Amino acid sequence: MRIGVLGTGIVGRSLAEGLARIGNDVSIGTRDVDSLMARDEPDQMGTPPFASWRGEHEDIGVAAFAEVGDGAELLVNATHGTASVAALTAAGAGTVDARIVIDVANPLDFSGGFPPSLWVTNTDSLGEQIQRAFPAARVVKAWNTMTAALMTHPEALADGDHTFVLCGDDEDAKTQVADFLRAFGWRDIVDLGDITNARALEAYVIMWVRMFSALDSPMLNIKVVR
Amino acid sequence: MRIGVLGTGIVGRSLAEGLARIGNDVSIGTRDVDSLMARDEPDQMGTPPFASWRGEHEDIGVAAFAEVGDGAELLVNATHGTASVAALTAAGAGTVDARIVIDVANPLDFSGGFPPSLWVTNTDSLGEQIQRAFPAARVVKAWNTMTAALMTHPEALADGDHTFVLCGDDEDAKTQVADFLRAFGWRDIVDLGDITNARALEAYVIMWVRMFSALDSPMLNIKVVR
Repeated sequence: MRIGVLGTGIVGRSLAEGLARIGNDVSIGTRDVDSLMARDEPDQMGTPPFASWRGEHEDIGVAAFAEVGDGAELLVNATHGTASVAALTAAGAGTVDARIVIDVANPLDFSGGFPPSLWVTNTDSLGEQIQRAFPAARVVKAWNTMTAALMTHPEALADGDHTFVLCGDDEDAKTQVADFLRAFGWRDIVDLGDITNARALEAYVIMWVRMFSALDSPMLNIKVVR
Repeated sequence: MRIGVLGTGIVGRSLAEGLARIGNDVSIGTRDVDSLMARDEPDQMGTPPFASWRGEHEDIGVAAFAEVGDGAELLVNATHGTASVAALTAAGAGTVDARIVIDVANPLDFSGGFPPSLWVTNTDSLGEQIQRAFPAARVVKAWNTMTAALMTHPEALADGDHTFVLCGDDEDAKTQVADFLRAFGWRDIVDLGDITNARALEAYVIMWVRMFSALDSPMLNIKVVR
């Protein structure tokens, strides 16, 4: 499947690498390819420059949002929450009927420092905002509840004995995402239902950042025991 | 220990029964004892009338909030979120320095139907509101993240292999709560830190109600895998 991943940070890179590993034709989209490839210093989070990562992943394309979106059957939104609708618009998310859009972003507000609050929550969510902005797309909220290192490597924690929670309006789109997840080794997948459940997946991040802080490691996830 | 439990619903009853079972002197507080004891029909949730429950738990006292609060070393707030500050005020929560107040309530807003939203969240929480209302008290947010049947019976789910998450400003108060928890059989307790983390424990409830709905059972909890 031809997939466009929007966002060049650690989340976009991890998902691009994973989706290519299981046999997809993946390109990463960005606003400005030249400036991205010219950067040669780690960012403020210590993430190595994109160009050096790309040197080890030459099977993954890099192009402007519009180019990556053109012809992609599926888009992954791995941009910052505040930039998501603009990036998806640039990638033409709304121009292809029934295209799957996996929304991985969180509406994090760091204006009060760490831990962040959310700039939309409770009675709305970023996932719903994206679905409303692109009614022709089939939005699935997924992967926003964990650190990048676990996204396509569940076995990196407790032999994969933990849970992946997702939601979205379209059953076939969720089945496609679940197929990816099983290919990565996820064994326990909970579907919360329609896209309004993005409120839950994003609200959980308020809990996640504080567990991360209390446990002093992002290598954590929940197992939904039932 | 002399404990006052505020609230006569299924949560208050479960905690009162459990805390009495492990050797505490427990009374349940209510606004109006006579009308409570006179009710002889199940409520709209199907919970049996208080008087019939009390018939099987005669070791547990029943009295007005003020009476129950008087002399109690520890208060448990198991009232509805909207009624919590008033009930705690009536029980004199602020009149005894350093008294432990365990806040079990959630700021649930059912005005939009099910699933509920929260009437305070994200940058504040009910737990913090209670701590601010009663600065002399030592508030611990606990037990708000699960169904009543699990609160003092973790073994009722997966042999107790799941996690209890709590928070609060006072270390000794949290140690006391953790002692209760271990007496009930809780083996994995995560302390998120100070009372501002009540934002996380309450935000998680947005996730919990939707998991309850998707899984069609309240007998669920998270295991924090790390």
